[in-house]
Parts: sequence; C-alpha cells; structure tokens
Amino acid sequence: MSERPIIAVDAMGGDFGPSVLIPGALEASRTDDLKVLLVGDTERIKAVLATTDTKGADYDIVQADEVVLMNERPADVLRRKKKSSIQIGCNLVREKAADAVVSAGHSGAAVACGMFTIGRLHGVERPALCTILPTEKTPVVLLDAGANVDCRPYHLFQFGLMGDAFARDILNYESPRVSILSIGEEEGKGNSQVKEAYELLKMAKNLNFVGNAEGRDIYTGDKDVVVCDGFVGNIVVKTSEGLAMSLTNMLKKVFMSGALPMLGALLAKGAFKKFRRTIDYAEYGGAPLLGLKNLAIVCHGRSNSLAITNAVRMAGTFVRKQTVSKLAETILANEELTRFSRAL
Amino acid sequence: MSERPIIAVDAMGGDFGPSVLIPGALEASRTDDLKVLLVGDTERIKAVLATTDTKGADYDIVQADEVVLMNERPADVLRRKKKSSIQIGCNLVREKAADAVVSAGHSGAAVACGMFTIGRLHGVERPALCTILPTEKTPVVLLDAGANVDCRPYHLFQFGLMGDAFARDILNYESPRVSILSIGEEEGKGNSQVKEAYELLKMAKNLNFVGNAEGRDIYTGDKDVVVCDGFVGNIVVKTSEGLAMSLTNMLKKVFMSGALPMLGALLAKGAFKKFRRTIDYAEYGGAPLLGLKNLAIVCHGRSNSLAITNAVRMAGTFVRKQTVSKLAETILANEELTRFSRAL
Repeated sequence: MSERPIIAVDAMGGDFGPSVLIPGALEASRTDDLKVLLVGDTERIKAVLATTDTKGADYDIVQADEVVLMNERPADVLRRKKKSSIQIGCNLVREKAADAVVSAGHSGAAVACGMFTIGRLHGVERPALCTILPTEKTPVVLLDAGANVDCRPYHLFQFGLMGDAFARDILNYESPRVSILSIGEEEGKGNSQVKEAYELLKMAKNLNFVGNAEGRDIYTGDKDVVVCDGFVGNIVVKTSEGLAMSLTNMLKKVFMSGALPMLGALLAKGAFKKFRRTIDYAEYGGAPLLGLKNLAIVCHGRSNSLAITNAVRMAGTFVRKQTVSKLAETILANEELTRFSRAL
Repeated sequence: MSERPIIAVDAMGGDFGPSVLIPGALEASRTDDLKVLLVGDTERIKAVLATTDTKGADYDIVQADEVVLMNERPADVLRRKKKSSIQIGCNLVREKAADAVVSAGHSGAAVACGMFTIGRLHGVERPALCTILPTEKTPVVLLDAGANVDCRPYHLFQFGLMGDAFARDILNYESPRVSILSIGEEEGKGNSQVKEAYELLKMAKNLNFVGNAEGRDIYTGDKDVVVCDGFVGNIVVKTSEGLAMSLTNMLKKVFMSGALPMLGALLAKGAFKKFRRTIDYAEYGGAPLLGLKNLAIVCHGRSNSLAITNAVRMAGTFVRKQTVSKLAETILANEELTRFSRAL
C-alpha cells in the first residue's frame, strides 16, 4: 500500500476524553504521514480543535451521535448503540473508509465491535488482544490479554501463530521465541488445555516454539511471545499493573520517611523518571486486536496523548507493512493442524 | 493443646541445604517454645549442629536415608522414595510423633506427600496451597497457589472457606474480606468456573464474601483472601515474583547510570533496605497446605534461615490455636452447599 494510511480514532473514549485523545491523534498524523478520522460529537471535537495546534496534521471529523457508558454490556453496545463512536469507527474500517481504528473507550465494547463489525480474518477462530509489556531486555508480546475468557487448545495455538507474525512484522524480531504460559518449565506441566496446545505449537510450521514459560519468565526478556487464554492473560496484565503501582507507592512511603532518603530521592530524580519511562505502558500505545480483517487497537482507559500517538503510529505501521496478510498466511499454513485439533 | 508443639523440619531440602535450614529451625524452637525434629541424613545434620549455636533449642534428629531430586516427578517420590526426608516428615505427622511438618524441598513432592501421607481433613475435596503476599496495607492470603491445576467450582468454594479460617486464626483478621479472582469487578464477569463458584461463595455460611477481585486489587490491601485455581494462582505468584525482581534490576540499572543517582541511592540505602524487607517473602515464612488432617508448610526453595524460622513459628501457632479444628468446622457448616454443587 503506497497510499497514506487512514486511521479512525474514537475521540470520545478514555478517562481523559477528547482534549487528550485529539492532540495525540494529530501528533501521529504529523510525524508519521497518516490521515486521522476523529470520530465523535462534532461540536466537542471542534471545540478541542480550536485550542489545539493542528499545523501539519491531516484530519477529518466523522460525526457519532451516541456515547458508550462504562457500565454498559458489550453485547448491548453492539446491538443498540449503532451510532456510538466505537461502532462508527469500526464501520469506517469495514466500509474501507479507514484502514484501522484506535479506541481508548470501553475495552469490552471495542473488542465486541471489532470482532463483529470489522469481522474475523478467514481461518481465525478467535481474535486475540495482544499486549506489549516492557521487560529487562526487549518488550514481550502477551496474548490473549482478555478477549476470550473460555478457550480451547486450538485457540491458544492460533494465538501463538498471530503473536509470532506480530512480533516479526511490528517489533522486527527475526525469529521470535514463542512460549506458552504454564506452571513449570518442563513439557507435560500445566492444565489439560495448555498441554494440548503445547503439542500443537510444537508441530506448527515456521514457528520458533520454545516451550513453556512460567510467570517469572515474563519480565526477564528471554521470551518474545507468551501465549495464554484471556482469563489468565487479563489477570497477569492487571496483577502486573497493580503490583508495579503498589511497589511504587511502598517505595515512595519509605523515601518520605526521613530526611536522608528524601535527599537521596531528590538527587536520583532523573533516574526515577527514566525508570518510570521504562515501565510506562504509554510507550507501547495500545493492545492490537489480532485476527480481524483489518486492525483495531484497544488502548488503556488511562491513556495519555503519548499513548494515543503511539497507538495510531502502530496502526499506521500495521497498514503499511500489510501485517494482516502475514497473519492470514501463517493461519493458512497451519490450517490443517487447527482443523485436526478442533475435530478432536 | 497445652503441650509444647513438635514440628518436623525437612533438613535436606531447599537451595541452601542444612546449613541454612537447621539454624532457622533452632531459632524458632528457641524463641517460640517449640520442639523441632530435624529430618535427614544424621551425619550431615550433626556436622551442621557442630558449628551452630544450639543453646536454648529443643531438637531431635530423625534419620532419612534418601534425598529427593528436583527433577523427580511428585508421584514417583510418593511411590518410590519412602525414606526421603519429606516422606518421613509427613509420616511423623501421620503417626502423631509430630504436629506439623515444614519443608523447603521439592514443592510438588511436598504437596503430594502432604495430601497422601498426612491425608485430607474429613469433607475437604482438595487441599490448597495458601500464599501470604505483602500489600500496601496488611498481607493478603491467596489460594490455591499451585496444588490443584484443574479445579471445579466447589473446589474454589472450599478454598474460600479455608482461606477465611486461616486469615481469622493465624493473621488475626476479624472478618476477612473474601474475594474471588476474576476479570472484572461486577458479578457475572469471569469464566464459567468462577461464575459458579461466585454463586456458592455468596451463599456460604459465616463468610464475609465481597465478590470479585481483579488482578490489580491483589496488592492494594483492600481484600484479605483471594480465591483462584492452582493454575492461575501459581502464575500470579510467579509473575509477581518475577516482576518485583525485574523492576528491582531495572531500577538498579538506572541508579548506576550516573554519579548523582548513585549518590542518591547511597543516601537512600536505609530506605531501600526497609523497602526490600516489606516485600521479602521470608517475612511470611512459607505456604501452608490447608485442608490436611494436620499442617504441612511448603517453603520457597530459596528460603533463608529467617523464612524457615517464620514457617516453623507459623506451624507452632497453627498447632497451639488448633486451627485445623476451625477449618473442619467451616467445611462442615458448608457441607450441604458443597455436596449440592458437586452433584450438578
């Protein structure tokens, strides 16, 4: 695709709303040569644009009459909120008026709209939410992070294939070390679902499957892709977020407990800032929902402008590199194995 | 029980062996008025005792001819290593020569020997490994941490009951806030197993069930007991360990990156030490295997002397308070509900 990618951005979602989302989207347009479609209430979008530097950014506004509330059930949004910003964003992708959509709104609704409005890629059983986590070395890709709560072994198998394609194409890993999350290093450890998925991953074509990963292996940087079901993945991601936050709070408390530590903290301020940046999810943008006909990226509700910019940038790269066709290829190459397992 | 509790200690297990385990056990005997039985190779134990301060400690040596290797399968240890230190430790408990057993050896083998040699408490479907984790406030109890990989809803239900009894009796929580780990706060969120267990917990007698906990709630200190299956629990505990370790390494790296941060770190040395102590698992001893006729405590392989001391102390408290009878009571009080769910 030599044309400039067009990315639809849900301008209404997120904890901080349009005033944070719109500058983030415009910045990506400016630096990465993309066009962004700002989807939402035209009046509110115009109000933000009036006080935002729009120079060098290529954008259009697409009206959305409805807003999704955080307590709505995803299925209800899908059925009843046809004019919500996330639905209209997904419609734009389905009708090829946009190449991808980015949302920081209701994640469950975004996943549901992505799955049903954009639709699954041929051969994909279940699209998976793919989180990029910082490690001591290079980032690791964990999927599924919450789109599929009850999974079958061949779902996990396809998550491995999609994670591999993503890590190759978007993170530029040459031969990603793909692993499956379990409770022991050795083959044969795990629950029945994981043990069966292990067998499939071992037989997969063109996959550097390195076996089980334990919880403690996620953040060392020695695996590139970690596969799990959406229940486990969601718990891993949220436990990690919570622990990092709590550790920071506990550290702050001890530093505030005396004059000497406080002076130490002051001197080390730059180091702390650097540290926080290393573990800041905003650096990684959002979580792509892999396995759709075109890309949807689901961002954290707490996303700041930088996170939106990076998510829109990732969407642009995804479109330019035609990562969807590579996903389709690896799914197709392993179709027999999937079908075999599904028939069991 | 007014008599002095007798705790069998597997003196051969753990990464650091007898020279760390034995001083730890003796210290608990000394400070908490307990008798310890040091189980293992008599010659090696005597060699350690010759260079250890034994003053004020009450101990005996119990010979064990065999040693469990880390790569052995738990079932094989159970069947073939009848004379291993962990098996003999559990035998001592079964034969009432000891009131409880503590091991830092092969965890899988310790769980298997605990379950089959000591045996389950009447009415308990599955014993659960109970981890105590530090939080921003008071410690939280998470179970099962890995004893049961594939669980049914009534197993999770009983984990909640046992976690509650433990938190009341050993952690002195008046009305523990018992929660179930899931992927959303609201009732109805989760996989099918969790949703069913939720219903049971809601109906339990004498239980302060507060609903779902998300991953991010574990470390805030707003829940006292978190219930999950052993697969999820093991992954949560190991992910947390790994993340805490990796964050520490990353923090060290940024502090070593310049003279100013290094000076800052030096000034804050005491604060860091205090922080490390807050999150040090050694403070919490080991993980009790709840639901046996008598207690087994499974310690981390990396346990230092302090961890062993605290584990043996916890075992002593457990015996003195007769926590096992309280576990039996709550299991019995909720027997109908368990039976009903099992029949579904």
